[in-house]
Amino acid sequence: MTDRSENSTFSALPDEFAFIRRHFHALAGTGALDLTDDAAVFTPSPGRELVIAADAMVEGVHFLPDDPPETLGRKLLRTNLSDMAAMDARPFGWLLTLACPKADTRYNDTWFHAFTDGLAQDQALFGVSLLGGDTTSTRGPLVLSLTILGDVAPGRALRRNGAKDGDGLWVTGTIGDGALGLKALLGEITDDSGWLAERYRLPSPRVGLGLAGIAHAAMDVSDGLVQDAGHLARESGLGVRITVEAVPLSDAARAVVQDDALRALCLTCGDDYELLLAVPEEASAALQARCAEHDIPVTRIGHFDRTLSGVSVCRQDGSTFPLTRSGWSHF
Amino acid sequence: MTDRSENSTFSALPDEFAFIRRHFHALAGTGALDLTDDAAVFTPSPGRELVIAADAMVEGVHFLPDDPPETLGRKLLRTNLSDMAAMDARPFGWLLTLACPKADTRYNDTWFHAFTDGLAQDQALFGVSLLGGDTTSTRGPLVLSLTILGDVAPGRALRRNGAKDGDGLWVTGTIGDGALGLKALLGEITDDSGWLAERYRLPSPRVGLGLAGIAHAAMDVSDGLVQDAGHLARESGLGVRITVEAVPLSDAARAVVQDDALRALCLTCGDDYELLLAVPEEASAALQARCAEHDIPVTRIGHFDRTLSGVSVCRQDGSTFPLTRSGWSHF
Repeated sequence: MTDRSENSTFSALPDEFAFIRRHFHALAGTGALDLTDDAAVFTPSPGRELVIAADAMVEGVHFLPDDPPETLGRKLLRTNLSDMAAMDARPFGWLLTLACPKADTRYNDTWFHAFTDGLAQDQALFGVSLLGGDTTSTRGPLVLSLTILGDVAPGRALRRNGAKDGDGLWVTGTIGDGALGLKALLGEITDDSGWLAERYRLPSPRVGLGLAGIAHAAMDVSDGLVQDAGHLARESGLGVRITVEAVPLSDAARAVVQDDALRALCLTCGDDYELLLAVPEEASAALQARCAEHDIPVTRIGHFDRTLSGVSVCRQDGSTFPLTRSGWSHF
Repeated sequence: MTDRSENSTFSALPDEFAFIRRHFHALAGTGALDLTDDAAVFTPSPGRELVIAADAMVEGVHFLPDDPPETLGRKLLRTNLSDMAAMDARPFGWLLTLACPKADTRYNDTWFHAFTDGLAQDQALFGVSLLGGDTTSTRGPLVLSLTILGDVAPGRALRRNGAKDGDGLWVTGTIGDGALGLKALLGEITDDSGWLAERYRLPSPRVGLGLAGIAHAAMDVSDGLVQDAGHLARESGLGVRITVEAVPLSDAARAVVQDDALRALCLTCGDDYELLLAVPEEASAALQARCAEHDIPVTRIGHFDRTLSGVSVCRQDGSTFPLTRSGWSHF
């Protein structure tokens, strides 16, 4: 509640709106109408399709209570940018809703200054701008929800359902860093270089690769490589086989992954935000060239097979790799 | 986590995705890609501007823990539709993120069936469809965040900053029902007909009135009439005067508003989702005719004045109406 003075004339900006102006105004782009209207208004690029997605993050579920505010907003923005990358879309704008623990003194002006400062850095890096949103209070943990907007040439959005029998299963970057980074931050494994924690806090969305015409299907790895490969396979009416030794690990991950349990963690715990791609053999060279242009590693880790059902995870010698789960589910 | 069996082949749909298919698939519209991809893809209507907004609702802040699931999603959809109405935009799609208390057994299949059933009713009523979203768990209260999409003819979006000196301040429908409805549901006042509670749970967004060309400025009343009138005035560089007796109350509200305290509640507590409009005298008849066509009451409750600053709330006799606050702020 605002304006405690006992009178009937109110001219000060209510607290919530002063807060928005103080912290978010600098992030607002064309169409945001200075964040002072009921909605944003913009002209879509003529001849393009719109691409839109939304993802939420909850304190204690998707991030640690002591994760730095500088990276928190960036992580959420990047997980959403990763969805744009999966569709081969060009991101341009985003909206944020924020349910903030009112009684928690951590979430003060200093915190929000760092939070929005991080977001400003990523806005510059990825060429996007804030369009709107909502701030509210909660008696529970901090909940952030972000909607991302992008566009794509008509009919060129990459889908999950386009994989063909015999396509290679490829993945960008390295897998497992995010899951191991969380373990490192919880003190369960070592991470001398800090690389793993950094990858947990700041994933690298692979936007702008332009893989339509090269890949038959794509998605980003958010809930675990095995589970997400299963989505590609299921939506395409195929099975998929993954060779464990082929799954690319970073140097930092290799240093700690000494047993099958940690290797399984890498395969199933998600938070990778790398692209998982179905690519026909004849396009393999084009894929590698395109990723090399952007200095992004890309690795063939398996293949799609219509004679299989679901995801089969094997060692190079053909034996089954033991897993107790395929990935992350919130329900 | 899913698939507890100890093997390396996973073909069942993970729980979270089965949940989405079971409850949300039927709501998905064109462009949602059956909710199985990383994002939705759609072709914007040629020659129209896109309008987008996002609002969140938190259990215990925006709704009561025992509010029926049938109306909960509808309320959030309607508050977002009200933002489209404020811009004079034509809504067409929405995305939902949902942070659900995992440990709370209330949020079971029965609950979600009722929740999505209500949303299906409103989808039909307002001509919108689900484009995408995200489901996650939380250890806190239920948090829902909805992003609404609409479009508008270029340059025709109604803004807050267009009010002119001398414009009348008009409001659709009746004011205070939502605030009184909450009081009734808390057992603090009587509501024999149930009208007030119904208005709290199911506001009536005034979409489709086509007020561009009639109103100079518009917004919806969500945070309190006085505070929201202040936004219109501030953004337009004017002051505004409201005559208390002119503010339209429903029959049910009039039956309980017996003192200045409850009248002040109506003016400042929000949850109205009516349109607040700046309309030049010469367009008053057109406004009334347009609203009559849609069977929606519209009332002149004051006027904009460049000699004033902020919002002045007076009685008909010119005396000041006592208020201790102008509206609702979450911070």
